Amino acid sequence: MSRQPRRALRLRRVAIDTYRENVAYLHRQCPAYRAEGFQALAKVEVSANGRRVIAVLNVVDDARIVAPGELGLSEQAFAQLGGRAGQALRIRHAEPPASMDAVRRKIGGERLDPADYAAIIRDITANRYSKTEIGAFLVATGQTEMDRDEVLALARAMVDSGERLDWQEPLVADKHCIGGIPGNRTSLLVVPIVAAHGMLIPKTSSRAITSPAGSADTMEVLAAVALPLERLRRIVRKERGCIAWGGTARLAPADDLLISVERPLSLDSQGQMVASILSKKVAAGSTHLLIDLPVGPTAKVRHMREAQRLRKLFEYVALQLGLHVQVVITDGRQPVGRGIGPVLEARDVLQVLQGDPAAPPDLRQKALRLAGRVLEFDPDVRGGDGFPIARDILDSGRALAKMNAIVDAQGRREDWLRLGRLRFEVGAPAAGYVIGIDNLQLARIARLAGAPMAKGAGVELRRKLGDRVRRGEPLYRVYAEFPADREFARALAARDCGYAIGRRAEAPRAFVEI
Amino acid sequence: MSRQPRRALRLRRVAIDTYRENVAYLHRQCPAYRAEGFQALAKVEVSANGRRVIAVLNVVDDARIVAPGELGLSEQAFAQLGGRAGQALRIRHAEPPASMDAVRRKIGGERLDPADYAAIIRDITANRYSKTEIGAFLVATGQTEMDRDEVLALARAMVDSGERLDWQEPLVADKHCIGGIPGNRTSLLVVPIVAAHGMLIPKTSSRAITSPAGSADTMEVLAAVALPLERLRRIVRKERGCIAWGGTARLAPADDLLISVERPLSLDSQGQMVASILSKKVAAGSTHLLIDLPVGPTAKVRHMREAQRLRKLFEYVALQLGLHVQVVITDGRQPVGRGIGPVLEARDVLQVLQGDPAAPPDLRQKALRLAGRVLEFDPDVRGGDGFPIARDILDSGRALAKMNAIVDAQGRREDWLRLGRLRFEVGAPAAGYVIGIDNLQLARIARLAGAPMAKGAGVELRRKLGDRVRRGEPLYRVYAEFPADREFARALAARDCGYAIGRRAEAPRAFVEI
Repeated sequence: MSRQPRRALRLRRVAIDTYRENVAYLHRQCPAYRAEGFQALAKVEVSANGRRVIAVLNVVDDARIVAPGELGLSEQAFAQLGGRAGQALRIRHAEPPASMDAVRRKIGGERLDPADYAAIIRDITANRYSKTEIGAFLVATGQTEMDRDEVLALARAMVDSGERLDWQEPLVADKHCIGGIPGNRTSLLVVPIVAAHGMLIPKTSSRAITSPAGSADTMEVLAAVALPLERLRRIVRKERGCIAWGGTARLAPADDLLISVERPLSLDSQGQMVASILSKKVAAGSTHLLIDLPVGPTAKVRHMREAQRLRKLFEYVALQLGLHVQVVITDGRQPVGRGIGPVLEARDVLQVLQGDPAAPPDLRQKALRLAGRVLEFDPDVRGGDGFPIARDILDSGRALAKMNAIVDAQGRREDWLRLGRLRFEVGAPAAGYVIGIDNLQLARIARLAGAPMAKGAGVELRRKLGDRVRRGEPLYRVYAEFPADREFARALAARDCGYAIGRRAEAPRAFVEI
Repeated sequence: MSRQPRRALRLRRVAIDTYRENVAYLHRQCPAYRAEGFQALAKVEVSANGRRVIAVLNVVDDARIVAPGELGLSEQAFAQLGGRAGQALRIRHAEPPASMDAVRRKIGGERLDPADYAAIIRDITANRYSKTEIGAFLVATGQTEMDRDEVLALARAMVDSGERLDWQEPLVADKHCIGGIPGNRTSLLVVPIVAAHGMLIPKTSSRAITSPAGSADTMEVLAAVALPLERLRRIVRKERGCIAWGGTARLAPADDLLISVERPLSLDSQGQMVASILSKKVAAGSTHLLIDLPVGPTAKVRHMREAQRLRKLFEYVALQLGLHVQVVITDGRQPVGRGIGPVLEARDVLQVLQGDPAAPPDLRQKALRLAGRVLEFDPDVRGGDGFPIARDILDSGRALAKMNAIVDAQGRREDWLRLGRLRFEVGAPAAGYVIGIDNLQLARIARLAGAPMAKGAGVELRRKLGDRVRRGEPLYRVYAEFPADREFARALAARDCGYAIGRRAEAPRAFVEI
């Protein structure tokens, strides 16, 4: 706080993408400001023609990056300031954002009120928080530190932080899985089934961050997913559905900032998850939401009682937000389908759509069950009729036709549907029955093999829970595109193949009927 | 975790000082790696000839910073890798440090054991933690989240993280204030008094980060403080004392990293404070430590019961670390002395040393009291004799002579003892008695005026608690070196001058005898 404008600096754009954190670059020999003095408190406020941005300060000793008398801004900070290179600007020590007081109160164990959450999310959205400050907020509100009204306040604040789509229809359906189960690509089946029924289902999703594939990554194998909002609107109006990447709209942008810190930290907070999912859906204009909540020993939610608690939290917050929500607790004991990785998962999806006898039955069954529940959002569909309607849409080929129409509308691509050419198999260490499959370990192996960036990389399961295997018989095959990836995946699978083999009676019971 | 070495990159040194965080720069068009893929998970592991560093990845679009095929490292990361420009290296996704599991357990409310703290501090010292991860650790262990054995484990781990000085003497004294009281420069009096007595007192301290002056900043007005360790040893051997900046030795380096995150976050954790102070002192080779613990409504510690709890925590941890500690609870209701800011505080100190009748009596009294307690660490000094011995050393001029000898040994400078030429006074808003002085607000005003970077800037108090004032009579004078600083300080003082005026009986009682 002690440094004030003294002399103007000249703005320079520094072509460094600092990934959701503003950075300012000041030459050590700057004639106007003592660079080191600013650095200890980490942040400066940069102002030019009435606009201000907060940035972390880096000190530079290379005039090719910034010269003395210049202030460089990283790409994002430069865009936020909206200035032009060479213009005059001033800097001063940035005060910590005022709402950090509330974060400190939360660290101290206090309950925060809606105005606190609104102020925090406003400051985060305005990029006034450093990543470290965001991390402090996440830890302070993590685990079970927020009660349900605090989760609601956080969700409301996040909705208000960005734009809100309006599809101008009374029923806008969506589905969402809380994640953690590899191969769980039901969205690519639910969307065409529901859209073929005529219900509006504009599905936007994020790319995989820590998993081997997300819906957007898998859809990208078949079609373009990064579409401008206006084009998305036209597609949805015509086809009643889409499967696109949500990054092009500014929906709950604070949530993206929180996630950019939360994921690398591997923090897992139910309150934050509920606020994040529901705020994104409300901002995306959904009115009816189905949530897939898998339970299993290596799923995100490991016990039924925890799933019930989480379900009630979803229901309470959604109710207050005016969003109709249905939570379906599903079997999360093992990956869904056979493929893990974008191309492998796309292949599973296409087999189900095409009625291929080789299609993975669990993926088909789960997708029909979820689609049926979404269809029952329609007031004209009787309770229990959703499943047979969905099955009929799928088996008649109408879902496949709808998927083809959506793929064509988004922009079909065929060049990516190619499996990695480097392969190896992992065999059973003993004879017996498959009594456990570790979702996390299989996801790790698929990621090491190159997924999701190498679209054709991943894991293809040959055996699932309850299957009998002989010693050495292949449990799964790994696909990679690069030799180094294959070797890393091979080493990890050799350390722990992710399968447990035992007696038939030892297989874990399903948490739900399937 | 999914990206592996494919093709070697060439190392480039990027002259950007990223302040205690490693950053790697990769061109977006890098032929070997897909830059965006790495960015979401925030960190990469860079390896070359057997050494590895972890760095946050920034993506670059300017070949003058790094060209495609190059990997740039920020100054600190480059030094850590110990490579040479142009050499081949490989990168891969960095796994989060293994000890982050323990941090997540702590976030979940578990108690950590010594092995957890050792692993966390080892990873932090090896720069495997991002600032965000350090922040998560600080929040998780903040407030009263650590019990006293956890504080001890953290302190031990921090001592073990760096070097440890050995002065080869049985009694190495030190004093430390927990901070928060402006003008509290007793170290510059205690050190010469104690050293003049012949007791070893090698005082190293940090620079001010969030306060208007630290001991090192104030001493720097009189003498050089950034001294190589060998030179410091020679000075201490000859003069029995020094007042230097501690940054040149690698003492408890993990503590520096924690502080670099903690201060900008303004986190305040008693456990972390105790571990930080005691680990630094043990690493610095101290055997006997006096702690000044001020209590007051705007001090760090606001209530006597809290002070007692903190005292016991200091005592318990110090005992286990083999450090003899004495905690003295002092009056923290208002700033000590008259000056706030390096030059103003140095002037107060010199007046006391010179026996100037204008010297601030509270600074003299407090310094004598603390020095007396330090002298009583000497087995030959009877309990209660410390104060008169200290007074005798001060009044006889021996403390001044010792200070001059230390200043000469460290390298005298006289050019900096100059007050800021821009001044203004703040008058009493009403007639009455001074019943409150806000330490935090006065510190803020002094910082806005330019302290500690502008050495001659700060606040000179004209009235203290209990003094009578007429309306408009000056409460204090502000010094600045730059017009903008003066105006910022003036605006802040106009908003809240930091003084409360009332009836005599309203003045807060001292928490301790003075």
